[in-house]
Amino acid sequence: MNESEFIAALRTLPLHPGAQDLRDDTAILAIGGETLVLTHDAIAEGVHYRPGTDPFDVAWKLVATNLSDLAAKGAEPVGLLVGAVLVDGAERFVEGLRAILTEYDVPLLGGDTISVSPATFGCTAIGRATVTPVPRRDGARPGDGLWITGPVGAAMLGFETGQGSAYLRPRPRLTDGQALAGHVTAMMDVSDGLLLDASRMAEASGCTADITLAKVPVAAGADPLRAVTWGDDYELLFAAPDGFEPPVPAARIGGMIAAGKAPLLLDGQVPGIALGYQHR
Amino acid sequence: MNESEFIAALRTLPLHPGAQDLRDDTAILAIGGETLVLTHDAIAEGVHYRPGTDPFDVAWKLVATNLSDLAAKGAEPVGLLVGAVLVDGAERFVEGLRAILTEYDVPLLGGDTISVSPATFGCTAIGRATVTPVPRRDGARPGDGLWITGPVGAAMLGFETGQGSAYLRPRPRLTDGQALAGHVTAMMDVSDGLLLDASRMAEASGCTADITLAKVPVAAGADPLRAVTWGDDYELLFAAPDGFEPPVPAARIGGMIAAGKAPLLLDGQVPGIALGYQHR
Repeated sequence: MNESEFIAALRTLPLHPGAQDLRDDTAILAIGGETLVLTHDAIAEGVHYRPGTDPFDVAWKLVATNLSDLAAKGAEPVGLLVGAVLVDGAERFVEGLRAILTEYDVPLLGGDTISVSPATFGCTAIGRATVTPVPRRDGARPGDGLWITGPVGAAMLGFETGQGSAYLRPRPRLTDGQALAGHVTAMMDVSDGLLLDASRMAEASGCTADITLAKVPVAAGADPLRAVTWGDDYELLFAAPDGFEPPVPAARIGGMIAAGKAPLLLDGQVPGIALGYQHR
Repeated sequence: MNESEFIAALRTLPLHPGAQDLRDDTAILAIGGETLVLTHDAIAEGVHYRPGTDPFDVAWKLVATNLSDLAAKGAEPVGLLVGAVLVDGAERFVEGLRAILTEYDVPLLGGDTISVSPATFGCTAIGRATVTPVPRRDGARPGDGLWITGPVGAAMLGFETGQGSAYLRPRPRLTDGQALAGHVTAMMDVSDGLLLDASRMAEASGCTADITLAKVPVAAGADPLRAVTWGDDYELLFAAPDGFEPPVPAARIGGMIAAGKAPLLLDGQVPGIALGYQHR
């Protein structure tokens, strides 16, 4: 059983309507007149980060990836539950948590602590929707413009050179997401690679994403074709009706067209490369 | 840094008021006129279950331990987020999830899937309080009776003999918890050992728990003194004013008295044994 088959099997379970058939990064829970946005992500040593990574950065990334999922829904964080591991240097983990909780003004709600090696950390983020219905990844329509809130490739450079904070300490675009949520037809964060995530949005929406490489903002020094297949930048990718004037800085990188032979075209062609990081 | 020091460090972080200073098993989130109860627990192969355990049982126990935390708050489950691991025999994990979701009528809300070995699974359970304020562990008062909803020791026997379902497939006392929540002064589930959990309730409440061993219901065939120090039975332990008539089957095993030289007395003595499973 591979991951796709596993997720397909999980879809046969009793699902909450807010689970959206497990086809989105978050669950939506309407309760008491509010709409909550819930997400859970885990990261494991040796899989999501290198052994020897400063636990400060592990804490930051654990929380940042979850907050990024809230950002893509325009949600305001309410609190976090953290499944923490008592690792060597645990005080650095606590300091990393303190840094990101303070930076984004998010309180800790609770969690659990275990001792296990190699370490696997979990985080559940709970947010309050600021706009309903919250943006989904499947709402784009042919004719929509396709946009990204900032450059790709900085995390790739950070990973490869050890320079800069983009890879180790990504910044979830919470305020951008809240500003955009009421205007977009679809939105998601770019975690696995721009081309891959754009193809997912297009496929979910029954469209083809038509991206022009030269229009994609790329971090200085990064090879554009590699940058668009690399994840971890956590910019927001969104679709909006033609003529949309975004309220936050964003670049139009292409548009959605009627579904064609592939969910993604790059400069009018089906790319002959891996689109991004595919979980196995 | 040991686990106590780690948790003490986590308490210095920005905490949500509903985190209750990380001194309870759940977080309380008042939202839109409702009160949510949130809990997150992780279980790891080789720590919380033996390598080679049927993934069906891993799934059951993962969910059951989280639902048990909701039970102790009298909460009704709303949904679960599962941090799943793609293990050998993942179809059995899915079937175990299906069994417990169906048994307790709880839907899956979402989650995450990773591949990591040894496996560490996470679960976040979200419940809706049926009674507010929800029972805490720190509300017991001297003079209260101390009660348990059922026998201890069945999980111990199951672990040691491989017989029966008590250890592998514990049953969260959700309906008992809901029936009791409006009447108790304190309640918690017994996960780490009756004596240890009772001493925690007493300590949090500023009392001493005074337990009579002969009054503790014990599974047939289990040694009483060992059974009261063994966890995993997930019965509910609660305190209630003297004269309370419980609406569900329960045994009065002692009472709370003014705080004395130790948080727990067994047959009038400070026990000279380990009280339960202490996380290191």
